[in-house]
Amino acid sequence: MTSRPLLSELPGYSDLQALANGVKSTSVSQLLQDDPGRATDFTLEAAGLRLDYSKHLLTTAALEQLLRLAEHAGVARDIAALFSGEPINNTEDRPALHTLLRASGSQGLEGKFQEVVAARALMQTWAERLNSGAQQGFSGATITDVVNIGIGGSDLGPRLVSEALRPFHGNISCHYVANVDPADLQDTLLELDPETTLFIVCSKSFRTEETLTNSLAARTWLRNAGAGEDALGKHFIAVTSNLQAAAEFGIPAGNCLPMWDWVGGRYSVWSAIGLSCAIAVGWENFAAFLAGAEAMDRHFRNSEPAANMPLLMSLLEIWYNNFFQAGNHVVLPYDNSLQHLPAFLQQLTMESNGKCVSEDGRALPYTTGAVLWGSAGTMGQHSFHQLLHQGTLLCPADFVLPLNTHTGMREQHRRLVANCLAQSRTLMVGRTQEAARAALLARGLGAQEADRLTPHLAMPGNRPNSVITMHSVNPGSLGALLALYEHRTFCSARLWGINPFDQWGVELGKEIGSEILGRLSGEASPGPMDPSTERLMREWRAAQEGDARA
Amino acid sequence: MTSRPLLSELPGYSDLQALANGVKSTSVSQLLQDDPGRATDFTLEAAGLRLDYSKHLLTTAALEQLLRLAEHAGVARDIAALFSGEPINNTEDRPALHTLLRASGSQGLEGKFQEVVAARALMQTWAERLNSGAQQGFSGATITDVVNIGIGGSDLGPRLVSEALRPFHGNISCHYVANVDPADLQDTLLELDPETTLFIVCSKSFRTEETLTNSLAARTWLRNAGAGEDALGKHFIAVTSNLQAAAEFGIPAGNCLPMWDWVGGRYSVWSAIGLSCAIAVGWENFAAFLAGAEAMDRHFRNSEPAANMPLLMSLLEIWYNNFFQAGNHVVLPYDNSLQHLPAFLQQLTMESNGKCVSEDGRALPYTTGAVLWGSAGTMGQHSFHQLLHQGTLLCPADFVLPLNTHTGMREQHRRLVANCLAQSRTLMVGRTQEAARAALLARGLGAQEADRLTPHLAMPGNRPNSVITMHSVNPGSLGALLALYEHRTFCSARLWGINPFDQWGVELGKEIGSEILGRLSGEASPGPMDPSTERLMREWRAAQEGDARA
Repeated sequence: MTSRPLLSELPGYSDLQALANGVKSTSVSQLLQDDPGRATDFTLEAAGLRLDYSKHLLTTAALEQLLRLAEHAGVARDIAALFSGEPINNTEDRPALHTLLRASGSQGLEGKFQEVVAARALMQTWAERLNSGAQQGFSGATITDVVNIGIGGSDLGPRLVSEALRPFHGNISCHYVANVDPADLQDTLLELDPETTLFIVCSKSFRTEETLTNSLAARTWLRNAGAGEDALGKHFIAVTSNLQAAAEFGIPAGNCLPMWDWVGGRYSVWSAIGLSCAIAVGWENFAAFLAGAEAMDRHFRNSEPAANMPLLMSLLEIWYNNFFQAGNHVVLPYDNSLQHLPAFLQQLTMESNGKCVSEDGRALPYTTGAVLWGSAGTMGQHSFHQLLHQGTLLCPADFVLPLNTHTGMREQHRRLVANCLAQSRTLMVGRTQEAARAALLARGLGAQEADRLTPHLAMPGNRPNSVITMHSVNPGSLGALLALYEHRTFCSARLWGINPFDQWGVELGKEIGSEILGRLSGEASPGPMDPSTERLMREWRAAQEGDARA
Repeated sequence: MTSRPLLSELPGYSDLQALANGVKSTSVSQLLQDDPGRATDFTLEAAGLRLDYSKHLLTTAALEQLLRLAEHAGVARDIAALFSGEPINNTEDRPALHTLLRASGSQGLEGKFQEVVAARALMQTWAERLNSGAQQGFSGATITDVVNIGIGGSDLGPRLVSEALRPFHGNISCHYVANVDPADLQDTLLELDPETTLFIVCSKSFRTEETLTNSLAARTWLRNAGAGEDALGKHFIAVTSNLQAAAEFGIPAGNCLPMWDWVGGRYSVWSAIGLSCAIAVGWENFAAFLAGAEAMDRHFRNSEPAANMPLLMSLLEIWYNNFFQAGNHVVLPYDNSLQHLPAFLQQLTMESNGKCVSEDGRALPYTTGAVLWGSAGTMGQHSFHQLLHQGTLLCPADFVLPLNTHTGMREQHRRLVANCLAQSRTLMVGRTQEAARAALLARGLGAQEADRLTPHLAMPGNRPNSVITMHSVNPGSLGALLALYEHRTFCSARLWGINPFDQWGVELGKEIGSEILGRLSGEASPGPMDPSTERLMREWRAAQEGDARA
């Protein structure tokens, strides 16, 4: 990859700061009122999703300037490079081909596509075998429960998809274990029967500490229940590229599904890492999930910049991060089935774009990845929304709103929708001092008391947010939604000059972790660590000896 | 409450900015190395918890200046006012007496204390009745499951405590329903039997939209299963101060436990709002939970400022928020049972301190409440820790580390501890360019490739974090931990000049929500809303007519 100018070196970058400063004193409500077309002009459609970005601190002039910035940055060229399999993950010299995982054609990458097609066939076979009841455990009993053991991308994606598509579930119950804390596995196994439980071990290397530790504990649990060595094949599937390690563990090659180095963990739910989801919802629904993502891929690849939903969302991210110093982004899915969406997006965005050097190693002179956080609405309204409305921080928000419910309880669901639209509107309109005072007087308060409380009831408003709607949470819309945020993350990475597909920053912690584990296990020290860590290790040791007060 | 100077008007405030600027170029590793006493001097003990704050971007000079600021702000006087029941919630003209809820003596507030004692007796009676199997449903079957219906403070606290103390659970399974999304209740009831399920409706006003809607749906579920009107008393308890509304719903007065206006929702887990927890773990354990919090209260009330753990943590919050513009705070419990802690703390801190005016209505010229976020370790290591280590943002971190496990799997737990200590250390030490290059060469890379990758492997370090340890997660340590963060929140509020006990900012959203619900339900409009909300309502309506593409 050739060196390219940093975002701040592009023509027009500094003009954007001037535009941002101007917008800060602009009323978004006023923009909407002054331009009758804004409410429809500032919406986009893609793959069954609709984005309303009309309530942003964004003028047409600023939007145009942002689009010019994307053009100068060469985002269109980057998009083409992503799909064509260029080694865009430059620090690891690999392509990033998660889009091929959901493609219905080879896209010119015949060899890899054949591997994808073969893996899909394996997934379909396993999904059908389990749902038909044909898979039996060591005692001959039918498998009824599947436990996915994985962490990070091998957990957050499958967990989200499985939970979100619960109305589509078939005969198998799927469970997710990730944490190395033994309580995670133990609590899960408490309710399961070894004779009818199958584990899927998801680890590209088959060496991930948490996953391997939990898999060993799961194997012991099976053995203690009477499963012989030769029965492990009835209870374990591996998704890995390390067949040898899986075999040493006791998982036969026929139970292994592939992972490739051209798929990053946080982009892997579309691969065999998503097997637990395919089992949970059946192959047809999983295929629809892939198709939803592919529809978003087509939109992303083929739309002109001004109509390109992932790019637009990325430009908003750049806008608030680099010119308003927001540093955070809140995602508020108004659907209980999407409660794990913020955790999934946290990994996607923060692991991808939490970098302070450019792809070619230059220190970046501007802010990159933001803290992404959030929770399912209406829960947050009774928690952190106070800060969204009256705090001192700028928290750009995405409301995600499915317009229909699977529960059949339409009247109750209408309340959910009303709450979502109300929060979006309230953030924008706020309440003036005059309106606050009038509201207090209308409640019967005396003038003096009304004056005293007015500043507390007043709300600044002008707080930016998007509303992303879809018909309902279903395999297709969910696939499109996740692909949307993947591509938004990619665009922001390319604008910032970052490689979003590596994660070198997590290596050192692993090294130091294994050093500390050695010390806690009584190994001799090559030399002292820092005094705080030394003291903490002493404290832990004392607590093991039944004395927490060391 | 008399008007007081704002934080920025206090003597020494601007000196802190100069100190902060100086610290930015200081190496924390170096501070620890230069001062052999720092690792122990920068620790505090309170109520069974230990705080290690030695890895902060904090010199002794800065710490002393922060303590002087607290003195000028009159925090000691505020602490006294909190405990003595002064109307410290000035906008609602009420005291905030959550500390009385866990007090073993009246603290001079005899009348209120008698009410608290009476409520505890009711809680104990219910907890014992349910755990002994004496409580029967409409068919005569013993109640086995309790569903807590509440939202915000009536949900997050009880949910956290019940989940964290799972090893202490007795015979009753407790479940939590909060969201107005009908899927939340429906998914929960799917696995329950109406004959053996009891609901606890937690709502001070008995009018909270989500809670009332879910309670009505629960009542319908019971009726459809054959429960007569007179049987509701066997299946419903209310925690409310609105006995009349509860009676109209069908809950007899004998099944109602009190709530008081001098306890805020986010401070209420110690009251009858915690009934589900008392049922889950039994009265003795719940009493130990209260005692743990009371021990922290004693520490908070009686410790001098420099040894006062909640105050120290608050000063760190002020330090990073106001002088480093951090704007966020990440909490990382290394115990799976504390996975709901960040969500609880989100409400506690962001609803309390997400305010932009002082208690007496002046616009604040500085940043207040931060975005609090986080997840259970080691999950985050495979997700957002990349950004903590190599991102461009300052994310001050609290590691929460219980030193023992209830699972009996000590070897696996040791890995969890090692990971926690490693993350804390890694954030501080980072990795220099030289060390990164040496590590790459040691892996066998050529000089040119090593040079290319060095900037990606290097880590800035110097990223501040605390480690809070305790013997294990148990009722006492959990009580102390939650009280610690409550008082930290209180100190920050008083330093910022905020009233942390009101939440006026959530009112307008409710008003607009009911207006929009009316519109969605076909009511005539008093006038158009903003064009975006109007368009979104049209889109929703079209989706209801089976056409999502309107």
